[in-house]
Amino acid sequence: MAKELKDLTKRSENYSQWYNDLVVKADLAEQSAVRGCMVIKPYGYAIWEKMQRQLDDMFKETGHVNAYFPLLIPKSFLSREAEHVEGFAKECAVVTHYRLKNAEDGSGVVVDPAAKLEEELIIRPTSETIIWNTYKNWIQSYRDLPILCNQWANVFRWEMRTRLFLRTAEFLWQEGHTAHATREEAEEEAIRMLNVYAEFAEKYMAVPVVKGVKSANERFAGALDTYTIEAMMQDGKALQSGTSHFLGQNFAKAFDVQFVNKENKLEYVWATSWGVSTRLMGALIMTHSDDNGLVLPPHLAPIQVVIVPIYKNDEQLKLIDAKVEGIVARLKQLGISVKYDNADNKRPGFKFADYELKGVPVRLVMGGRDLENNTMEVMRRDTLEKETVTCDGIETYVQNLLEEIQANIYKKARTYRDSRITTVDSYDEFKEKIEEGGFILAHWDGTVETEEKIKEETKATIRCIPFESFVEGDKEPGKCMVTGKPSACRVIFARSY
Amino acid sequence: MAKELKDLTKRSENYSQWYNDLVVKADLAEQSAVRGCMVIKPYGYAIWEKMQRQLDDMFKETGHVNAYFPLLIPKSFLSREAEHVEGFAKECAVVTHYRLKNAEDGSGVVVDPAAKLEEELIIRPTSETIIWNTYKNWIQSYRDLPILCNQWANVFRWEMRTRLFLRTAEFLWQEGHTAHATREEAEEEAIRMLNVYAEFAEKYMAVPVVKGVKSANERFAGALDTYTIEAMMQDGKALQSGTSHFLGQNFAKAFDVQFVNKENKLEYVWATSWGVSTRLMGALIMTHSDDNGLVLPPHLAPIQVVIVPIYKNDEQLKLIDAKVEGIVARLKQLGISVKYDNADNKRPGFKFADYELKGVPVRLVMGGRDLENNTMEVMRRDTLEKETVTCDGIETYVQNLLEEIQANIYKKARTYRDSRITTVDSYDEFKEKIEEGGFILAHWDGTVETEEKIKEETKATIRCIPFESFVEGDKEPGKCMVTGKPSACRVIFARSY
Repeated sequence: MAKELKDLTKRSENYSQWYNDLVVKADLAEQSAVRGCMVIKPYGYAIWEKMQRQLDDMFKETGHVNAYFPLLIPKSFLSREAEHVEGFAKECAVVTHYRLKNAEDGSGVVVDPAAKLEEELIIRPTSETIIWNTYKNWIQSYRDLPILCNQWANVFRWEMRTRLFLRTAEFLWQEGHTAHATREEAEEEAIRMLNVYAEFAEKYMAVPVVKGVKSANERFAGALDTYTIEAMMQDGKALQSGTSHFLGQNFAKAFDVQFVNKENKLEYVWATSWGVSTRLMGALIMTHSDDNGLVLPPHLAPIQVVIVPIYKNDEQLKLIDAKVEGIVARLKQLGISVKYDNADNKRPGFKFADYELKGVPVRLVMGGRDLENNTMEVMRRDTLEKETVTCDGIETYVQNLLEEIQANIYKKARTYRDSRITTVDSYDEFKEKIEEGGFILAHWDGTVETEEKIKEETKATIRCIPFESFVEGDKEPGKCMVTGKPSACRVIFARSY
Repeated sequence: MAKELKDLTKRSENYSQWYNDLVVKADLAEQSAVRGCMVIKPYGYAIWEKMQRQLDDMFKETGHVNAYFPLLIPKSFLSREAEHVEGFAKECAVVTHYRLKNAEDGSGVVVDPAAKLEEELIIRPTSETIIWNTYKNWIQSYRDLPILCNQWANVFRWEMRTRLFLRTAEFLWQEGHTAHATREEAEEEAIRMLNVYAEFAEKYMAVPVVKGVKSANERFAGALDTYTIEAMMQDGKALQSGTSHFLGQNFAKAFDVQFVNKENKLEYVWATSWGVSTRLMGALIMTHSDDNGLVLPPHLAPIQVVIVPIYKNDEQLKLIDAKVEGIVARLKQLGISVKYDNADNKRPGFKFADYELKGVPVRLVMGGRDLENNTMEVMRRDTLEKETVTCDGIETYVQNLLEEIQANIYKKARTYRDSRITTVDSYDEFKEKIEEGGFILAHWDGTVETEEKIKEETKATIRCIPFESFVEGDKEPGKCMVTGKPSACRVIFARSY
């Protein structure tokens, strides 16, 4: 067994350490020299690229276009929307100078005090302000609407406690910013994009999510409503995986963006914004992976199939090479990403462990006997089951297997999640159950005070108020478990990342 | 004629103003609220995306992988390589604080003096330093080499005089950073990537370029050699369109990156870096466009074909719609990007002018008579020539036409460039000819002093020393036009963007 694999902490021993180990050992990302900023390594970035490509296609199919807005935002822009500045001011990276100069003592470079900016600039923590300042010039009439822009960008929020992918100071994301003539249209857009996220999470990441609306306390700073998809990790904690905000006219008012409507009257523009980030990498890793390493959904795996030869001598290797060549070609023809690893500086056992660690969904092995029998050994990463299969039509077999794995890991994650949903009616029971993790469905009186009391006392937050019934009876009215006041329906509580 | 089009300055009147007008009126980009930073608008970004996709494919075909490194770089990193810091310190955006707070007078937010960073961070002007600091942990043995990473990112250089796409404080680019075991391998890589850039420029952008090496004066800060592709704009000025640097062991030494070679000896790693940026958008626009607007090469046009109906009434429009539907489907089947614009709120004349302005390579028009005759009017944007063509097999006709346009605009640009190359032997003649623009091939004694004297007196710089003979006899030795000292070959002088 490869050294790297032996060192991987077991989930049951320390889930948090297992995650950290895995991200580093599977070559996904690592800490950089700048506190809180990560380096996304080639293998991790390849997964992110596949996510990007798929999401981008889905955005374009729903009528969106990409654009690019400045990295830096004038400090004063942030203050224009009162809640927005409250939400972000405390974690802003501030640019104050535009030049360095040589230190007089020859010790290197220092900030040139003569190059102080008149107004400080902040590195975008999110781009509503700079974008709405731009939209002001793009929108005069209802004919200019809707605007359906998306941006792929880096953003910066100076978080104190960071973890690779899950919470980093700099992260990569996409942020959609749309402008509409009517409230209804904007609300529909916000829901549409939440549905796109949910579809992406379930069909591509194989991560089951629950769609719902956030409580006021958990809303995006400046939004009227925040919609969310929430996933459950293998330790029972929730992970907010994507949000879509109905911003009302808040940013239009803050940046004075009005349009002449069909009735020839001036009106403020309606807005949405929505985003997912490299945080999804964390969700992907934590949902499926096991003590042997990553388990990747075939739809997002950079390498879907790896082929490893086992041979006694060069002559035999040449025969296997020749045989495999045709199989590789046929797999590629089906659009399957395949790697043939016949490098002779690593033993097969090392390769097996390494590709397991990296989560390659299907491994094919051809040895001397396979060559004689026209077979290969097929191993699927999700269950680690092996089977010997004839080479005739193996490409179709593999194609089907990839789809089966995709479906299976979704089902497994879904079964796990569903097994960790509890309904409670008393606060005492809640306090007990929350220690076990999972989603807890309970009644809540709808007030910020109660929510904050619960958070303070149990570290649990309201993940969302589900759009649709999530467990039987959860949409029936009841009484708040804390105050006994009336509650329209149960909401999902959990501890979260 | 559309209002937008009428307002476009003519090239002959003011080339510089024509460019600025065109970038804004064709909806490619605009100035933002942050000085020197641009907003890349959806149509401009769509062209950039096509460039990115193609370049990325070419990088991957040559064995490269993508990764992502931090936006912010500790100030001290910059000083590690002496020439590098000289080159970039004067234009660095400096982050000094990590938090804002409410102003005491309630006037908004101010920088929180308590949140001063111990060491300032700079926004990457380029990433050699942070990447080589990272590579230190990735490289121990020759088995870890080569590393062939590329990054798509934003960078920031506080330029004083900026122009959309050509020179902006923030710009988008890719930067390749490779690490090698031998000098030869690194030099080969630097040349390989210059060749990739040249192929991209010529085959996709349809921009003829000359490949060569920079003089010491024009070298990248920290490189042993900088290779470049140089293009000529329609005003005779040169535009450096991509550079590839052989960095020797400079950054490996600065960041102490050593490896154990095959002979089991410690050695510093050899490096290259190479990049192209949104500046290519400027090259694309200025090479092909005319007084009617953009002219885009079909290989990079977001919309390759636009179809406009001309109709008397709804009934006729419906018939045209039905007819066009099949043509659109057949064009799409050939992988051609086509837009059918039957919007009824704009006149055909407005649409014609607008798509001309936007540089759509082929326009198809179907009117009532065309419908009867089973024909369409085809206009090609490069020559503005019109022709009436039968609808039978029109998709193949258009496919061929797109390739013909691609070839034609390259040829046109090449013919123009070649017509503006002059060979001079005396400095007096040089001073006269340089006023007319174009590339001037002259002998130079190889010294920085002479180069700087020429630059000071004529604003011309050495664009490159071409790899291959560029005009007849230019590789024969001669005497420096300024000092009379011996010169091995002629070099290309020009004024440049």
